Amino acid sequence: MATASLPSDLDRRYGLVRQVVLPGPLPLDGGGSLSPVEIAYETYGTLAPDGGNAILICHALTGDQHVASIHPRTGKPGWWTRMVGAGRPIDPARHFVVCANVLGSCMGSSGPASVDPASGAHWGMAFPVITIRDMVRAQGLLLDHLGVARLRAVVGGSMGGMQALSWPATFPDRVEAAVVIAATARHTAQNIAFHEVGRQAVMADPLWRGGDYYASNEPPAAGLAVARMAAHITYLSEAGLTEKFGRRLQSREAKSFGFDADFQVESYLRHQGIAFVDRFDANSYLYITRAMDYFDLAEEHGGRLADAFRAVPARFCLVSFDTDWLYPTTESRRIVHALNAAGARASFVELSSPYGHDAFLLDSPELNRVVDGFLRADG
Amino acid sequence: MATASLPSDLDRRYGLVRQVVLPGPLPLDGGGSLSPVEIAYETYGTLAPDGGNAILICHALTGDQHVASIHPRTGKPGWWTRMVGAGRPIDPARHFVVCANVLGSCMGSSGPASVDPASGAHWGMAFPVITIRDMVRAQGLLLDHLGVARLRAVVGGSMGGMQALSWPATFPDRVEAAVVIAATARHTAQNIAFHEVGRQAVMADPLWRGGDYYASNEPPAAGLAVARMAAHITYLSEAGLTEKFGRRLQSREAKSFGFDADFQVESYLRHQGIAFVDRFDANSYLYITRAMDYFDLAEEHGGRLADAFRAVPARFCLVSFDTDWLYPTTESRRIVHALNAAGARASFVELSSPYGHDAFLLDSPELNRVVDGFLRADG
Repeated sequence: MATASLPSDLDRRYGLVRQVVLPGPLPLDGGGSLSPVEIAYETYGTLAPDGGNAILICHALTGDQHVASIHPRTGKPGWWTRMVGAGRPIDPARHFVVCANVLGSCMGSSGPASVDPASGAHWGMAFPVITIRDMVRAQGLLLDHLGVARLRAVVGGSMGGMQALSWPATFPDRVEAAVVIAATARHTAQNIAFHEVGRQAVMADPLWRGGDYYASNEPPAAGLAVARMAAHITYLSEAGLTEKFGRRLQSREAKSFGFDADFQVESYLRHQGIAFVDRFDANSYLYITRAMDYFDLAEEHGGRLADAFRAVPARFCLVSFDTDWLYPTTESRRIVHALNAAGARASFVELSSPYGHDAFLLDSPELNRVVDGFLRADG
Repeated sequence: MATASLPSDLDRRYGLVRQVVLPGPLPLDGGGSLSPVEIAYETYGTLAPDGGNAILICHALTGDQHVASIHPRTGKPGWWTRMVGAGRPIDPARHFVVCANVLGSCMGSSGPASVDPASGAHWGMAFPVITIRDMVRAQGLLLDHLGVARLRAVVGGSMGGMQALSWPATFPDRVEAAVVIAATARHTAQNIAFHEVGRQAVMADPLWRGGDYYASNEPPAAGLAVARMAAHITYLSEAGLTEKFGRRLQSREAKSFGFDADFQVESYLRHQGIAFVDRFDANSYLYITRAMDYFDLAEEHGGRLADAFRAVPARFCLVSFDTDWLYPTTESRRIVHALNAAGARASFVELSSPYGHDAFLLDSPELNRVVDGFLRADG
């Protein structure tokens, strides 16, 4: 996506690779507040004079704000160019698109790797534990800053879908539609268990040093890599792994009878782990997984999920994938039932894909058709 | 189970808490051989004069030979008293029962924690990489020592089921029947992936020291605990975890907004990890998971599973559990199809249980009925 035609030349609030320091305070679900609040974000397209074309895109656990632009550090295309771009369901020619790095992350928004202005040192584990709703409220502050009163839609997959669900529940008057893909309204015991393994892997690494590793320049890479490996398995389907790797050996004719990565799947996983530690902060991983584990939209509304959607005028579009065992179709169906019980307008489709949870990031013409149709429909 | 009536008073080969050092050499699939071969084992009951009542029980990844006796160190009952004992499907009053600690383990059989007689030091990572078939061949040596020419049956669940499958394929003339519970004929990419996470967790622990931690008396406990936690999730079903823990908090009224074990499932997993390192050797964990990942019975027979069972006279009983996602029913069915294609006699049942893979270790009257009926049937 070229930057020349973006409104960034007119108003420095808009454009790629933006970062703003908002005064806050941002009240937090865990008590207390955060002030100031740094938010790194990007915008694409132009906000319509009536403000009616704004779409907020929410990223997943380890995602970032570079949804459809070249990543400034890696040089890689944005993570959702299949969904966002010219001729895509979310099109800067028609939409004003905003994507912000979530609170707690490490891509420019306030998180444990940020410097606490009060102490002048990195927050580390002194950063407050945050929730999905805190992320949403921080996005609300950003939209205030950008002059976006209402969202035509909020769209996200995985943890982005949790935010997309939380948005209308938190700001019922600011959202016209929510697209919730491969997500869930609460983390189950198994979801929590996998995240806890990852956190324990990070914390077991002596280089973690209670989260105080920024000065040493030696992050707990080994622990974080193990955490990523464990999580990565949950993003893929068993059938997808079998199709992609099966029991094929890695660059060898026969088993080595040793502990090298004999199998392609081992080599692939090790690579996933190693590549991840180059781009992600270990403490952010702890904080964001915690926010996801804490997420239970029903609990925030007296224990009844439907009550989260009472008096919510937004339309909802739910999409699940049949081989997603992290947030399986049953979880999307639970949400749809609650929406129905609350009298909210909801459409739901389960798409077929061999790729498990990660399917929402991959090429899926059906997904694009569903999202495009939903976004074009009138409220 | 009382020891007084066991034949151990007559012949020191028989009885509880036995260990034998066999001269070998034991040829290994990876090349070379092991000599001598230590095997820790237990026997229950009396070998019939015609030798026709011997049953070999094969244990799972982290199991041991104390199948139906009080564990000498922990004081806990044997791990399969539901299946083995007076009035049980495998009954020392009728059967001569043998259970041996597998090669590579750490409960008294030769493994990385054993002392290499050639060097006088612990083997560590110099121990040869072994296979499921190597374990089976070591059991064959033990049976020779015990004077057991033929097995009335070989019985096992999980990795024990892999051995029970491998037995007739390796020694077609020594086995009359095989009971294969919650097992698979090959490790899939996902199975390998989970094990690789565990191995990387162990090896990432600085205390692992390339496997050379025996002298330090500081094993890589943190890494092994993480490995166990990750594996443990695969032993339980999502529904079982939800039923047992859901999102319930651990000894608190509200979330702590910290990184303690807020959720019961976190506390449970941490406990599983910590308890495990007290009883298991980290290097053994590496070796045995490797043996399981290498297991592919078809591959050992030219790539066709049915060929593993050609000219095998044994009867087979396959049992799977509907919520077992580690070795799901589809894997047992693959085996049954291969047995059918080979003209072998096979019965198969999928049992219903909420408990996932671990169901084979838990109370299951249906499992007992199936095994009892199968063992009582005439060859």
